[in-house]
Amino acid sequence: MRDLKNNVPDSKHEMNDKNVSPGDWVVVITHTGDTFQGTLMPRYASMDKKHVVLKLKSGYNLGISSSKVKSVSKSGHDLGLATNLVDDAKPRLQIWKENVQPVHKIALIGTGGTIASKVDYRTGGVSAALSASEIYDAVPELRKHASIEADFMFNEYSENLEPHHWTLIANRIAEKVRSGGFRGIVVSHGTDTMHYTAAALSFALHNLPIPVVLVGSQRSSDRPSSDAALNLLGATIFSIESPYTGVFIAMHGSTSDDFISCHLGTRVRKNHTSRRDAFESIDRLPIATVKNAVLKIQSQFVKMEIPKRSYNDDAVISEGLENNFEVESKFDPRVTLIKYYPGLDPNLIAYEVKTGSRAIVLEGTGLGHVGRKFFPEIAKAIKSGVLIFMTSQCIWGRTNMKVYDTGRDLIELGVVPLEDMTPETAVVKAMWVMANSHDNAEAVRMMGKNIANEISLTSPISMRLLNYGED
Amino acid sequence: MRDLKNNVPDSKHEMNDKNVSPGDWVVVITHTGDTFQGTLMPRYASMDKKHVVLKLKSGYNLGISSSKVKSVSKSGHDLGLATNLVDDAKPRLQIWKENVQPVHKIALIGTGGTIASKVDYRTGGVSAALSASEIYDAVPELRKHASIEADFMFNEYSENLEPHHWTLIANRIAEKVRSGGFRGIVVSHGTDTMHYTAAALSFALHNLPIPVVLVGSQRSSDRPSSDAALNLLGATIFSIESPYTGVFIAMHGSTSDDFISCHLGTRVRKNHTSRRDAFESIDRLPIATVKNAVLKIQSQFVKMEIPKRSYNDDAVISEGLENNFEVESKFDPRVTLIKYYPGLDPNLIAYEVKTGSRAIVLEGTGLGHVGRKFFPEIAKAIKSGVLIFMTSQCIWGRTNMKVYDTGRDLIELGVVPLEDMTPETAVVKAMWVMANSHDNAEAVRMMGKNIANEISLTSPISMRLLNYGED
Repeated sequence: MRDLKNNVPDSKHEMNDKNVSPGDWVVVITHTGDTFQGTLMPRYASMDKKHVVLKLKSGYNLGISSSKVKSVSKSGHDLGLATNLVDDAKPRLQIWKENVQPVHKIALIGTGGTIASKVDYRTGGVSAALSASEIYDAVPELRKHASIEADFMFNEYSENLEPHHWTLIANRIAEKVRSGGFRGIVVSHGTDTMHYTAAALSFALHNLPIPVVLVGSQRSSDRPSSDAALNLLGATIFSIESPYTGVFIAMHGSTSDDFISCHLGTRVRKNHTSRRDAFESIDRLPIATVKNAVLKIQSQFVKMEIPKRSYNDDAVISEGLENNFEVESKFDPRVTLIKYYPGLDPNLIAYEVKTGSRAIVLEGTGLGHVGRKFFPEIAKAIKSGVLIFMTSQCIWGRTNMKVYDTGRDLIELGVVPLEDMTPETAVVKAMWVMANSHDNAEAVRMMGKNIANEISLTSPISMRLLNYGED
Repeated sequence: MRDLKNNVPDSKHEMNDKNVSPGDWVVVITHTGDTFQGTLMPRYASMDKKHVVLKLKSGYNLGISSSKVKSVSKSGHDLGLATNLVDDAKPRLQIWKENVQPVHKIALIGTGGTIASKVDYRTGGVSAALSASEIYDAVPELRKHASIEADFMFNEYSENLEPHHWTLIANRIAEKVRSGGFRGIVVSHGTDTMHYTAAALSFALHNLPIPVVLVGSQRSSDRPSSDAALNLLGATIFSIESPYTGVFIAMHGSTSDDFISCHLGTRVRKNHTSRRDAFESIDRLPIATVKNAVLKIQSQFVKMEIPKRSYNDDAVISEGLENNFEVESKFDPRVTLIKYYPGLDPNLIAYEVKTGSRAIVLEGTGLGHVGRKFFPEIAKAIKSGVLIFMTSQCIWGRTNMKVYDTGRDLIELGVVPLEDMTPETAVVKAMWVMANSHDNAEAVRMMGKNIANEISLTSPISMRLLNYGED
């Protein structure tokens, strides 16, 4: 393999087989008697020299502290070791040195984040990491599935992304779609605000003829437990094989590194700071999973209103454009999200109105409430032409402002409930709506209309298991 | 039974047995042939007359539309009906008319919310609902477990509660504790901000000799599917039998109305707008469950640092006070919680400083980040003496600001990460700390110190299932 640096620990332990080199199928025995088998990986350029890194049969990278390694030796056959660690994983690494010709072409757009550094284990630089050959080296299985045309847009941790970045990304995706020839588009992205961007792209890109799949990683490249390879493989496979179009996020579906979950771009949230399966669909199951490179669509979605690809033959991909593909990529950042809590000062509403907010999304309590001491400021804001929308900090479930006095009073004041939209999707949608509507009446209409599955028409799980009658 | 109003539908269907009255064990047959058996409940005063309400063996209230009822007749024996609806439930209603002398006394403090209206099915008023006899009528099983001394404090939907209410509730609890003789204290509370209040009480009440258990209900009293009875029973049993002291929340553990989960007051959140099991422990399992009136402690907690009761004999309950019970019930509301999102205006920080915030809790992204365009305003705020703390909007997981540049830069500026504290608990704790510390240095020390399990020392679930070594 070209460019692969030696991963063999320097001199701290006995090398049983001097001919061991990266890419070999090896057995590692530790001083404490543990035994692992996998493909010896090249050392990450940015990593210290304290680990031997094995790629297990699942595709998972296992880092073993060099000080714990007793021996590393080549192995001609599969001993079935470490399978207790990775159940239900088929060997997928044997294609490492195979020359498979991919059938489909995808575009990979790099925007930064942990995953961008991950696919670069040699130079430590990010742009270099996104050449197709380097991606194949990092995730050799990709070669089997796709020919990748990589496009480095920028390199930004996603907490630094602003609404104007959503515009840039949407426009770049539109260029790719219009250029034709891509079976799908994968966007690598920092995980911190990936769900905000996914929602933004969901509203900006109409009638996409192909899927757009955002992907990130929770573990950085200098850690052997990185999830980037499996995520990128899953996102690629979903972008190629998905019968649906639209905007999605593909990330680990469990902590066990065994499958990828694919989420609707407007119904997903980062729900853990560090776990690989941090992204969860809200009030829905993920739309699909990818396990052992096999895509499985969740049956609940088969009858749902998710747009389908209008073609299946790559030769006519550009015809997808007849599908009325459109871009409305403007966002108006003069929208404020306010999370309610006991003690919050109602004057904050007046401040936001004074400093030019055109719309305020409240993250209320429960079914969509704020304390009654907010009513006067809310009434004033609405009278001055500022739109006020209601979501719930519960995250799961639907707002319902008709159950209690508080909710009815707020509706009376003119507060608009946003059904089961997540607060994050709601603030993004409001920014998009304020930039793409002509007046407040149209804005309110657009906010209440389901555009990209951000509003579910029915609850997926019945709440009234035991109720018989009209409760 | 005194005061029980007739629940028998007016004249819409045939009454097979004219002697049927509330409290009777009856069989209901519907026009569609369904058959249910249970205790005929008195009609809720606030409810329309369209339902017959049965209490099933599980304690669950089943509402059957009157128009669907063909007949209601007394039944001398248990036909085993409706058991397919309620698996694994033991008959618990037979004690309805029994005269069981409860061994333990608990205090029930009413603060309002849905549950307060639930236990009142006659007058529609709330204060009346909290006499002990009325509570027993609504939840007859309670009689078996506790003698209840009810105390009506106020009747407020919890979205209207402010930090000064926490002070009032803490002081009232302290009175009960100091008066002695109570085995536990149950506080009925609206669910919207119950977790904020639970956190507040956790910080305000030190070395509690007995458990304080907050309880609410997600379904209002005029709906037959109300969860109030089972929640109140579970809270009562936990308050009596828990080996632990401290502040807890007891609510449904599933949507199936089969068990109650008991959560640590600082590690719980309302995670669904409407489901009965809306409350979830964050980064922990619930501390205990109550199923079929049996308390089960989660084994992971057996070795945890949760304070235990210092006595087991009610006769010496007042001796619990030797346990250094203390109250610090002041809260300073000049603390702001700001949820970060792309497009948020950094000038908001300056506004909060200008309007007198003494501390700002940021609900950052991922491991605890905000965009770099916030750095100058954050630096200015800190220089002017305002404390800035970091939590994560991911909700689950621990902040870690040492992984990425953004986090390290923020620490450099003086931002203080709050480990795995939830944002809701963090803002409450900050209000408490600002009211109970002498200077900023002490406040920062107190925020970083685990006081009531708001900071977990270890993650309960290993994040690194496959990692071997020092990753």
